[in-house]
Amino acid sequence: MEFDLIELIRKRGTAARDDVLLGIGDDAALLRPPPEHVLAVAVDTLVEGVHFPVGTAAFDIGWKALAVNLSDLAAMGATPAWALLSLTLPHADRRFVEGLIDGFATLAGQHRLALVGGDTTRGPLNVSVTAHGFVLPGQALQRVGAKAGDAIFVTGTLGDAAAGLCCLDRERADADQLMGASGGSRGKLIDALNRPQPRVAAGNFLRGVASACIDVSDGLLADLGHLCTASGVGAEIDADALPLSSALLTLFDAEARDFALAGGDDYELCFTVPADRAGEVSSNLSRMGCGAARIGRIVSGEGLRVHDTEGRPVRCPKTSWEHFRT
Amino acid sequence: MEFDLIELIRKRGTAARDDVLLGIGDDAALLRPPPEHVLAVAVDTLVEGVHFPVGTAAFDIGWKALAVNLSDLAAMGATPAWALLSLTLPHADRRFVEGLIDGFATLAGQHRLALVGGDTTRGPLNVSVTAHGFVLPGQALQRVGAKAGDAIFVTGTLGDAAAGLCCLDRERADADQLMGASGGSRGKLIDALNRPQPRVAAGNFLRGVASACIDVSDGLLADLGHLCTASGVGAEIDADALPLSSALLTLFDAEARDFALAGGDDYELCFTVPADRAGEVSSNLSRMGCGAARIGRIVSGEGLRVHDTEGRPVRCPKTSWEHFRT
Repeated sequence: MEFDLIELIRKRGTAARDDVLLGIGDDAALLRPPPEHVLAVAVDTLVEGVHFPVGTAAFDIGWKALAVNLSDLAAMGATPAWALLSLTLPHADRRFVEGLIDGFATLAGQHRLALVGGDTTRGPLNVSVTAHGFVLPGQALQRVGAKAGDAIFVTGTLGDAAAGLCCLDRERADADQLMGASGGSRGKLIDALNRPQPRVAAGNFLRGVASACIDVSDGLLADLGHLCTASGVGAEIDADALPLSSALLTLFDAEARDFALAGGDDYELCFTVPADRAGEVSSNLSRMGCGAARIGRIVSGEGLRVHDTEGRPVRCPKTSWEHFRT
Repeated sequence: MEFDLIELIRKRGTAARDDVLLGIGDDAALLRPPPEHVLAVAVDTLVEGVHFPVGTAAFDIGWKALAVNLSDLAAMGATPAWALLSLTLPHADRRFVEGLIDGFATLAGQHRLALVGGDTTRGPLNVSVTAHGFVLPGQALQRVGAKAGDAIFVTGTLGDAAAGLCCLDRERADADQLMGASGGSRGKLIDALNRPQPRVAAGNFLRGVASACIDVSDGLLADLGHLCTASGVGAEIDADALPLSSALLTLFDAEARDFALAGGDDYELCFTVPADRAGEVSSNLSRMGCGAARIGRIVSGEGLRVHDTEGRPVRCPKTSWEHFRT
């Protein structure tokens, strides 16, 4: 049966690429990296009930499993090329696999990415993707490199995915109210949770422009914190400058800022640029359609401080998303 | 806590390699493939209770998770270089992770392989490794290529891992007898199950020599079947020529042949060579220490036939190892 699943996955197919010499079906894939390029490789795993709610559609699981990896490549400024998929399933459920591969392949097609290999095993649902991309030597974005005075940006909007998760939470006191929300806000927030758009084009644009970059997967405070630690700097964030969607403000006005600071699962890029290039970066990313908000600045020292536009300190939500809470 | 685990993994370290430009700790690893080479990439996942018994030592889980992937690279004739490790754990158990990384790193060190990235998440125990190796274009071994008349070989011995699993099975009628077995046979069989030795050197030697190759993970009949299907040929196996260890014969005389034909988890290489090179291949692999037994020949047509040395048909065990039995 494993063999049938692999056949099913192979037949659904993804982008055809000249640099795939041998794809799914042997003991390993054979791939030809482009000359002179550096390979960027990331692996991220989704577990049911941890990274997506139980009952999430198979299509969305497949989409998200690839999206979170493309987001890692985007944060390095790399151009996606190949991926491998390791699928652990409780049952050999053909329809589920078809849906999952559909979601995976739909996003893969948008980025000309080829699924070149994988593994299917039996066990509690677990979806692990390894993604490969290319970048020229010296052009990759990293967490290290931010300097005091740099402007801090974030693409898109923050907090939508965390709000989307709340929309699915039947335990909330306002669950019925959220369920009946009009104007498509609820759907938009759940979409942000289930089908994040990896910022590949923005990451490519930021090569040679950003001084440091990270993707926001664990929440802005946590991930900007990682960037600052790697760069040996601190940061000041203007909470009033956080980019919030109208859907978020419509349904979660009181919690919106906390979601944006610590919500997690945003898969936006947080990056720094020298202050004198801030205007140019902002207008270019806006033209590219994803937009980027300037949310603060890098300072010497360490730690993150959050204030409002008048400079008053803002109380921060205590925790951000971590898979192992202690 | 996830961050601590990643730190722990990074500190334990593996081989230092010049071609790793950026290892664990950013959104993706940055790697420099060697010029003119093809990249061989495989992913394999181990699930508790499916690929290793509940209660297996952390060291052995880490070892095996890498070994099964190196076995895939060996089957392609590739030289291992880099790996990524995705670890899903029920609890952030520091001692368990240390043991697992120890096992992984011990085997990695034997093959100058660098652990360059990974992921830790919370959930039912699941260990997924993606391994990368290099091979010159046109030199990779594949499942396709076997021709009628070719000799079929297998490295090492078969059936030991399946017998090792039986040694751990308290439900067997002869469990007490196996537990008390003297002479180290029991330990050798359990070692074969828990710490398979990937045949990397043999795979490298077979480049330009073998007409087709596969690693035996699901059992000889299943995997040789895949090789034959890919090559469009059939095979005849001499059951009396199957290489059986003295440990296997000591403890499982009656079942030894079935274990060797269908047991699974052997991680030996099964390969084909033109008949006129069989002697040379045999003596070379014997000098390399792993040995290789000539177990049959490729025939035109399709299907596998198993006979004894007198040509009498041998009854085959019905099923071989598949993760999803139907």
